[in-house]
Amino acid sequence: MSEAPTSPVLVLHGGAGTIPHATLTPARADAYHAGIRAALRAGYAVLADGGAALDAVVATVMALEDNPLFNAGRGAVYTSDATHEMDAALMDGRDRRAGAVAGICGPKHPILAARAVMERTPHVLMGGEGAMRVCRDAGLEFMDPAWFGTEARLAALKTELARRASGAADTRSDADKHGTVGAVARDCRGHLAAATSTGGLTAKTPGRIGDTPVFGAGTWADDATCAISATGQGELFIRTAAAHEIDARMRWGGQSLEHAATEVIEKLLAPIGGDGGLVAVDAQGNVALPFNCAGMYRGYVRGADAILMSAIHREPWRTEAA
Amino acid sequence: MSEAPTSPVLVLHGGAGTIPHATLTPARADAYHAGIRAALRAGYAVLADGGAALDAVVATVMALEDNPLFNAGRGAVYTSDATHEMDAALMDGRDRRAGAVAGICGPKHPILAARAVMERTPHVLMGGEGAMRVCRDAGLEFMDPAWFGTEARLAALKTELARRASGAADTRSDADKHGTVGAVARDCRGHLAAATSTGGLTAKTPGRIGDTPVFGAGTWADDATCAISATGQGELFIRTAAAHEIDARMRWGGQSLEHAATEVIEKLLAPIGGDGGLVAVDAQGNVALPFNCAGMYRGYVRGADAILMSAIHREPWRTEAA
Repeated sequence: MSEAPTSPVLVLHGGAGTIPHATLTPARADAYHAGIRAALRAGYAVLADGGAALDAVVATVMALEDNPLFNAGRGAVYTSDATHEMDAALMDGRDRRAGAVAGICGPKHPILAARAVMERTPHVLMGGEGAMRVCRDAGLEFMDPAWFGTEARLAALKTELARRASGAADTRSDADKHGTVGAVARDCRGHLAAATSTGGLTAKTPGRIGDTPVFGAGTWADDATCAISATGQGELFIRTAAAHEIDARMRWGGQSLEHAATEVIEKLLAPIGGDGGLVAVDAQGNVALPFNCAGMYRGYVRGADAILMSAIHREPWRTEAA
Repeated sequence: MSEAPTSPVLVLHGGAGTIPHATLTPARADAYHAGIRAALRAGYAVLADGGAALDAVVATVMALEDNPLFNAGRGAVYTSDATHEMDAALMDGRDRRAGAVAGICGPKHPILAARAVMERTPHVLMGGEGAMRVCRDAGLEFMDPAWFGTEARLAALKTELARRASGAADTRSDADKHGTVGAVARDCRGHLAAATSTGGLTAKTPGRIGDTPVFGAGTWADDATCAISATGQGELFIRTAAAHEIDARMRWGGQSLEHAATEVIEKLLAPIGGDGGLVAVDAQGNVALPFNCAGMYRGYVRGADAILMSAIHREPWRTEAA
């Protein structure tokens, strides 16, 4: 059976939150836009070459993990113990095969750890030292804990710990508290995939696992409906099964991707204080990038012209040729 | 606003699997039935006294955790390292508040660890040592690792490790491989709750996390639809978002609880090799206990007569006055 060639689509986010205009200088905004474009290029090269959506989202997330501006891989935030605990997840829309890791620090690219769980074990989700063992057996590249840290993240931790000690109110922007990276894609065969990776929350309690590795909450992919990667207050994405809720509204409620994704962010999450956003693509190549806070680092690329689209706040897209 | 008094309902499972008739002697079957009834009594006493569904499912699961016949708490299976790694989860249908732990060994009642995460932290899911710290801060009762083990579970581990070393085929019954306990309830105010607790799979790879603490997969509760606790091949319950799929079919597909729960087990899980079952209750007090393997330890009690119903295989219910 031959499958009709389909125009590939790639969508990514680099975290949602109330990113203050005041502290985001033009130079820093340019750096984020450049990071988004670099990650789009990395993933779209796979798709344009006829590669699989699964490989494209992994390549995209690896590029974001390598970039210390984003809270995943290098640049991951610190726990209250000044350690790193990273979560990552990967799902293949063809058969919903999936892999995820929770609370690891070692593999240079946590998304490859998720892939190792998917491909090398009969399991879907693995945590801590057991997950690390799988990564070592897989021969993944490891880095010292210090490699993941940056001065900016350490400063954010110290500021937050000092605030807690003083009893002062938490006035950090949401962007300072959390962050996540993720990508969804449709490849030229019409298959979907989703990948998400995060360092979690600045000064989080060690052991806290967010929505990233909880399939149906922060990560989901099914060729029949859509692929989703979310960012924001993970606990509320778990309690609403946000990603699977979008899938369910499309399958059982007859909603479009745009309608379902927007309603979940605006009408399900926002009323209970769940700030955040998500990126989504459906089987027809439609994309949605809803968020209910001031900004979400985001971008997409699709079609033959392959223009790289990037944005941070509610603003016109910046465009650049691939 | 006064709420109409509603007849309480409690449903539990003690794990699903192909429990061989041949090895289940009448005396052993009697012991399982007695364990099911004792757990029903513990939870129903809470409901009959006007207590909350949340407290009832916790009391039910604690009774099952205390019983070494069931794979949760005392009697938890061993990992391949001859350790215990327990998962537990709790969800309140009133507002979908939730708490879960993954990969812990220490708290006598893992379901109380899940409750501590729900009540004492802003988080929903915590793993390993970080979760243990929350449990210690909560003053939970701890037991030595040896307390959780039983000779039967250790024998099962040794047999399985010897089989793996010999390269022989895996001929264990599903009941020997895994097991889980769980309960769902509707209280006299019409509120729902779900609780699940497990030791996981015999000889599992350390670090493996199953569907129990993945909300939307093995555990879910929403007053608007239903409460669910699942048991079986956790990886496939995660990849199908089994519990939230039942919720979604009721809300968006107009299906009844019985229809939705049965279809998820028979038509979604069974075709991909996902053996197992679940217990469910809806806002109207309907119950469902579908499973696609030879047996599932299960029971329920409801209404003014409060007859304790228990069963293992596909067989008539045993009944006993409360």
